[in-house]
Amino acid sequence: MQNFEYCVPTRIVFGKGQIARLAALLSDDAKILMTSGGSSIHKNGVYEQVMAALEGKKVTEFSGIEPNPKYETCMKAVEIVRNEGIDFLLSVGGGSTLDGTKFIAAAAKYEGDDPWDILAKGAEVREMLPIGCVMTLPATGSEMNGWSVVSRISTTEKLSFWSQHSFPQFSILDPEVTKSLPPRQVSNGIVDTFVHVVEQYITYPVNTPVQDRQAEGVLLTLVEEGPKVFAHPDDYDVRANLFWAATTALNGWLAQGVVQDWAIHGIGHEITAFTGTDHAKTLALVLPALWKHQRKEKQEKLLQYARRVWNIQGDDANAVIDEAIAKTVAFFESVGISASRKAYGVTEEVCRQIESVFLNRGVRLGERGNLGGHEVYEILQLTAE
Amino acid sequence: MQNFEYCVPTRIVFGKGQIARLAALLSDDAKILMTSGGSSIHKNGVYEQVMAALEGKKVTEFSGIEPNPKYETCMKAVEIVRNEGIDFLLSVGGGSTLDGTKFIAAAAKYEGDDPWDILAKGAEVREMLPIGCVMTLPATGSEMNGWSVVSRISTTEKLSFWSQHSFPQFSILDPEVTKSLPPRQVSNGIVDTFVHVVEQYITYPVNTPVQDRQAEGVLLTLVEEGPKVFAHPDDYDVRANLFWAATTALNGWLAQGVVQDWAIHGIGHEITAFTGTDHAKTLALVLPALWKHQRKEKQEKLLQYARRVWNIQGDDANAVIDEAIAKTVAFFESVGISASRKAYGVTEEVCRQIESVFLNRGVRLGERGNLGGHEVYEILQLTAE
Repeated sequence: MQNFEYCVPTRIVFGKGQIARLAALLSDDAKILMTSGGSSIHKNGVYEQVMAALEGKKVTEFSGIEPNPKYETCMKAVEIVRNEGIDFLLSVGGGSTLDGTKFIAAAAKYEGDDPWDILAKGAEVREMLPIGCVMTLPATGSEMNGWSVVSRISTTEKLSFWSQHSFPQFSILDPEVTKSLPPRQVSNGIVDTFVHVVEQYITYPVNTPVQDRQAEGVLLTLVEEGPKVFAHPDDYDVRANLFWAATTALNGWLAQGVVQDWAIHGIGHEITAFTGTDHAKTLALVLPALWKHQRKEKQEKLLQYARRVWNIQGDDANAVIDEAIAKTVAFFESVGISASRKAYGVTEEVCRQIESVFLNRGVRLGERGNLGGHEVYEILQLTAE
Repeated sequence: MQNFEYCVPTRIVFGKGQIARLAALLSDDAKILMTSGGSSIHKNGVYEQVMAALEGKKVTEFSGIEPNPKYETCMKAVEIVRNEGIDFLLSVGGGSTLDGTKFIAAAAKYEGDDPWDILAKGAEVREMLPIGCVMTLPATGSEMNGWSVVSRISTTEKLSFWSQHSFPQFSILDPEVTKSLPPRQVSNGIVDTFVHVVEQYITYPVNTPVQDRQAEGVLLTLVEEGPKVFAHPDDYDVRANLFWAATTALNGWLAQGVVQDWAIHGIGHEITAFTGTDHAKTLALVLPALWKHQRKEKQEKLLQYARRVWNIQGDDANAVIDEAIAKTVAFFESVGISASRKAYGVTEEVCRQIESVFLNRGVRLGERGNLGGHEVYEILQLTAE
């Protein structure tokens, strides 16, 4: 096991009817900016529940934080924060709303010239406004971690920052509200969660049985519960299990002491940048190809995964790994994601452009740092046509 | 899944050489009281490492917190805290040292007449001194939870309190230092950890697959790693895995949304009170008997445990459960704990005394509240002679 430090101070408030807990979680003195995305919270009853809980408190509203939240939008909120003396941010929505809110919280307290430096130059985040969260979408895990991803229209960049100050003080997760999600977001959330886990698990072993078993536990839960949510969309427990799986997958718990990868995300982000494909769909496309390409380097963990998650037996390592990859693809299909280059517009030209991105950046991906532009191109060639 | 709230703000600093991190984790301005138990930290090099890291800081030492920490001892430390204006407590030792330190932290800030009321009357803990911890023994999980158990000599009571203020700010866990532990403490720690998990797992199902798999992951780790520590006492990874299993078992993570039991602990505590038997040994004695007694009530989870932890197949529920119980007992024996009434002095008279305790208290144990004095007596009769 590798050395690690772990500190996740967020209070998770999980379950039916828990949005009402906002009344007690927020001080009456706080000057709150409530941030949100589009119209979905008005359709699913979340807005009414939040407003009922906030009765008697000082609340300003800021809506319009888009999927892949924009720097430009966030900076409008920062102006409101400064003009109105806001001292608490309440994010009501999905991962994008929360990621944008985290950046607003950092930018509002940033003492340098340009808050974009937090993302572009890793400028130190010494202080942030406190954040609370009502999370409506199981997927990103942002409700229990310190990460934020923000895009800038003017420069077409998509960048991230992490800060210990960026953890929400509290996150309310009511699985009931996820019943109204469109199937596309549910499918994406399941695949996103699955790939979050494997980025922390399918690498090379460093003797971490607790963490491995817990990663496998989340994967097995997704495999068992994922298809159920489409067959029984009103089943509360299925919704609750998928929500808790998503939070568990990326709150750092599975990452402690292990070797991590994140190459699937690295390649997937570029596919989204060039084609606009949903994040989760790019992951479903890249994962099988990357595992085929790295089958030797990842062999021990892939065999463990095959055995423990899919109960595949056999002595021929290649055959076992191929079967595990096929079962993984079939699982993605069972939750509504049939990934293919053609469907997503990943043409030969796009593959070459992505190759160039990595060649130019000189970045090497993967837990062994062995994937440069050429290898990324090879992996793209191995994706399903 | 049941509703829950979860908030564990402790920073875990895990790994080789991490005691040196104390220098950065503690402010130079803090007036620190370093609390400890007996002589073990002087024998295993921990004291020297701590003192080296504390160089230049203001430190007062208080040693002598005993196993099953005593109220009377803790109150001596409270006097030092008050006289010297101590503003930070650093616990260096095992779970007893930390539990005592938590009580010191609460008592020193208690505004009522008698700090014992915190334990005896559940008096509200509004504020505590901040606590840091160097944990030297994998067992109680106190390093990442808000619980403290304290005894009082004058009244022969052993009571506990929990507070959100009671979580250590940080806990340093260096598996290297556990290599010098006596085998008896290692055995006890493994069994204690195992039973902590099953108290949160072998109850009745409420559809919590993530939590169940994670509980099973800790149990499987103990089963696989436990015997290795005696065969290879110098293996760092085995020590690290047992330490992380112990912390994971009782930091609340496995308990979220599930039904809990804690009857094994309830009965075990009385056996310790009447016979002085080690806590973990009482758990190893009671567990098989309680499962036999409650085999119908716990049937679904016992069958799941049999299948997933011990890979026992079969259609005869009773036979499967009996085999799972036998494998559990064999596991306890494989880590050095062969529990029996006779060896521990649990005579017929003691069984009747314990029955009376529960009859007089009117407490009913178990996840269904169906175990009163008579049932506890029946369970004691089912323990190994």
